[in-house]
Amino acid sequence: MTSKKIINDPEQLVPEILEGLVLASHGMLTKVDGVNALARAALPADKVGLLIGGGSGHEPMYTAFVGDGFADVSVCGNIFAAPTPDIILAATRAVDQGKGVLYVYGNYAGDVMNFDMGAELAAGEGIETRTVLVMDDVAVENHADRRGIAGAFYQLKVAGAVCREAATLDEAVAAVERVQQNLRSIGVAVGAGSLPETGEPTFVLPDDELEIGMGAHGEPGVERRKMMSADELSREMVRHVVDDLPFRSGDRVALLLNDLGATTQMELMIVNRTVRKMLADAGIEVVRTDFGPYLTCQEMAGFSLTLLKLDDDLERWVNAPCRSLAFSQGV
Amino acid sequence: MTSKKIINDPEQLVPEILEGLVLASHGMLTKVDGVNALARAALPADKVGLLIGGGSGHEPMYTAFVGDGFADVSVCGNIFAAPTPDIILAATRAVDQGKGVLYVYGNYAGDVMNFDMGAELAAGEGIETRTVLVMDDVAVENHADRRGIAGAFYQLKVAGAVCREAATLDEAVAAVERVQQNLRSIGVAVGAGSLPETGEPTFVLPDDELEIGMGAHGEPGVERRKMMSADELSREMVRHVVDDLPFRSGDRVALLLNDLGATTQMELMIVNRTVRKMLADAGIEVVRTDFGPYLTCQEMAGFSLTLLKLDDDLERWVNAPCRSLAFSQGV
Repeated sequence: MTSKKIINDPEQLVPEILEGLVLASHGMLTKVDGVNALARAALPADKVGLLIGGGSGHEPMYTAFVGDGFADVSVCGNIFAAPTPDIILAATRAVDQGKGVLYVYGNYAGDVMNFDMGAELAAGEGIETRTVLVMDDVAVENHADRRGIAGAFYQLKVAGAVCREAATLDEAVAAVERVQQNLRSIGVAVGAGSLPETGEPTFVLPDDELEIGMGAHGEPGVERRKMMSADELSREMVRHVVDDLPFRSGDRVALLLNDLGATTQMELMIVNRTVRKMLADAGIEVVRTDFGPYLTCQEMAGFSLTLLKLDDDLERWVNAPCRSLAFSQGV
Repeated sequence: MTSKKIINDPEQLVPEILEGLVLASHGMLTKVDGVNALARAALPADKVGLLIGGGSGHEPMYTAFVGDGFADVSVCGNIFAAPTPDIILAATRAVDQGKGVLYVYGNYAGDVMNFDMGAELAAGEGIETRTVLVMDDVAVENHADRRGIAGAFYQLKVAGAVCREAATLDEAVAAVERVQQNLRSIGVAVGAGSLPETGEPTFVLPDDELEIGMGAHGEPGVERRKMMSADELSREMVRHVVDDLPFRSGDRVALLLNDLGATTQMELMIVNRTVRKMLADAGIEVVRTDFGPYLTCQEMAGFSLTLLKLDDDLERWVNAPCRSLAFSQGV
């Protein structure tokens, strides 16, 4: 069975999303001329630029995280496809103020290729750029190949705070690399999302199975298992994440429970109990919790669990005030 | 096919949700002793109390809207079931500070009966309460029978702002009644949610149909129609809402696009374009837009459209700073 999406022309999904977001922003966001990218309408002078982005279809990531204390611009590929270099170049130009531009995006081959080409084109115009990939998905064993999933939220929230106060691009890179190195996530899917252009599901799971470690587009995970209780599942997922860094007794962490699309807050909060119990038993202190849809895969049912190990700087940055369409936090 | 929910014992859904929310709140929320209700851990002295609530399963409504500038306490029935009078009484006691307590909840027969009984029990203890029902669903023709749907967000946001500054319960009631009278919503479903205890869908829609006006539990709507484009659907829904109050040229409004569970931000933003175009053509100015999951029906696919007509006071209150697990807005 195909999904029923409330859309118009499937070829126009991305421009229509951006048009809707600009209207919903009431002056906060503006489209970058001629390309599928959204920027802050009013950029503070003289700041290090922050550019984020990737394939569309994962909303609110990335476009709805543009704003004060978040990114300056988001570049938007087609659904589940990397943004093209011309978009990246135009967006880089739009936010560079002479201090260079930091790129933060998920580690996918197509994205890396296109962002690198965009960076080269920008360099040709004298704009310096640097990249800190999001690569938090512990389901991929080889570190260099790790995908970026919902941990992107913390990485770009810190990046937003840092780029606001950093004097140089180097300072910003160093800070955001600390996030990259201390960020770990794992996902689970119990049901597929669909390609909005066709309504076809992105994978098929048997009625009584779940898949631990499945990626944000339905990439294969660690293992398929029979459905299990929320408590059992939570324990498995915490183990995957904690053992990987590893997180240790005495660590302070931020915790994100990300709804992949159709999973309820009810389920996330039921999971949260067991996650917190396991972390407490391991001596790991959760100082901040975020939950809800941050990086989705259309109507995929499932969630991901992210931990970010904090030091004093990271804690200050991750708790910094910010304002965007997807998330705001007061001073 | 039944749904796959990430839960434990179906009998323990509500206490487990509340346990997870208290943990996620990091000290902001506390459980009311012995009943399924969540209250602010630190209440400002001497304020008019604000109590909200209803059946569980619609998260983030109502429990995640407890906090500064929102409600003081939320009472939680079982999934899709009214909270019992003993819960309401205990929660009323927990937040009354001698100035009385305002009840804001959706207009459903079971809720009205139980909240009225709770109010009577409270009156027996000398606690004054008043009620302003949420009844924004224009799909129900008879005004007195109108259900409360996602417009609840604006009604309780204004109520939260008002109860913070109102000297008396009467003042608070008068203000929140202005919301009730100027609030209109309509929903559409393209796919069912399920009862989490059994996994059974709450209704069945043919693969090529949608239902306009369907309620938040799957109550019958205005009409079933063939699937249509987002633009056509948006136009139908705007007409239902605008013609009802009616909203007129020169009106200023707040606009909420509520995801009923599995509808993407992508779809809401595509819809937003046409909604804004129609409102602009009618001379209606949108001064605030909210979108995302506010009142859900598990994994129901569909959304609702809410307009609140503003005057200067309502605009100030609806834009007032607030902080809760579901929604925060800075000063």
